[in-house]
Amino acid sequence: MRYLEDFSEGQVFELGEETVREQEILEFARRFDAQPFHVDPEAAKKSIYGGLIASGWHTGSLFMGMLVRGLIHDVASMGAGGLDELRWLKPVRPNDVLRGRLTVLGTRPSTKHSDRGQLACFGELFNQTGERVFYVRWSAIIARRP
Amino acid sequence: MRYLEDFSEGQVFELGEETVREQEILEFARRFDAQPFHVDPEAAKKSIYGGLIASGWHTGSLFMGMLVRGLIHDVASMGAGGLDELRWLKPVRPNDVLRGRLTVLGTRPSTKHSDRGQLACFGELFNQTGERVFYVRWSAIIARRP
Repeated sequence: MRYLEDFSEGQVFELGEETVREQEILEFARRFDAQPFHVDPEAAKKSIYGGLIASGWHTGSLFMGMLVRGLIHDVASMGAGGLDELRWLKPVRPNDVLRGRLTVLGTRPSTKHSDRGQLACFGELFNQTGERVFYVRWSAIIARRP
Repeated sequence: MRYLEDFSEGQVFELGEETVREQEILEFARRFDAQPFHVDPEAAKKSIYGGLIASGWHTGSLFMGMLVRGLIHDVASMGAGGLDELRWLKPVRPNDVLRGRLTVLGTRPSTKHSDRGQLACFGELFNQTGERVFYVRWSAIIARRP
């Protein structure tokens, strides 16, 4: 198990890759973000995106999935209080292959709780052509080594 | 259909309410955020949250669903470039009843594209006891009236 003390500024973790499935784009968006360019391939063709794209919340959730499977499953994570900045830089389309990466921006023990601290994180997703499609900056709450 | 010109600073839109289902908390988290306090009720009891809580990405997606059904279905929305600030203020638990609200912070025509502009938004979720559990600040891209 990794604790706050096991992280330091500048560390980079590769989180693996995953193919984006059209079926999941449609299902996610029907439930959570039913805008025409997310749920209707024909309407999406006529939109500024020129075809179906994933909901941004789906893209963020895909990043989180990669982060948990690629790193956090092994970390004494206690959650997070929020996100400080998130950008959807390029559309994410069916059959795109996304690759995730996490960079540690810094660590800081909590002044309020002696058992935990903040891990400042920068997460990115790249597609199969190497374009960066997404980034997010936030602080995760991680337990200190007991 | 509502266009950028139909919005102005200070407008408030009530987005309706929705009950959070334990089954969906578990399914969402198994796919996208399989941390113990999101997928394992027993482990969650021993966590700092004292019980199962929704993934923050699920909470954000629930807000987006309410926003689309409560407002955007009727708006010439063209997506968004990102989020500027997001906070998970309180845990969201099974059977919580969330109520959504959107406040317009301002509008600004695009200098690059004459057919669209930015709608600065502030979104919030409150639970059944009136506690604010979530907020998010971002700019949506909205078409101008043709």
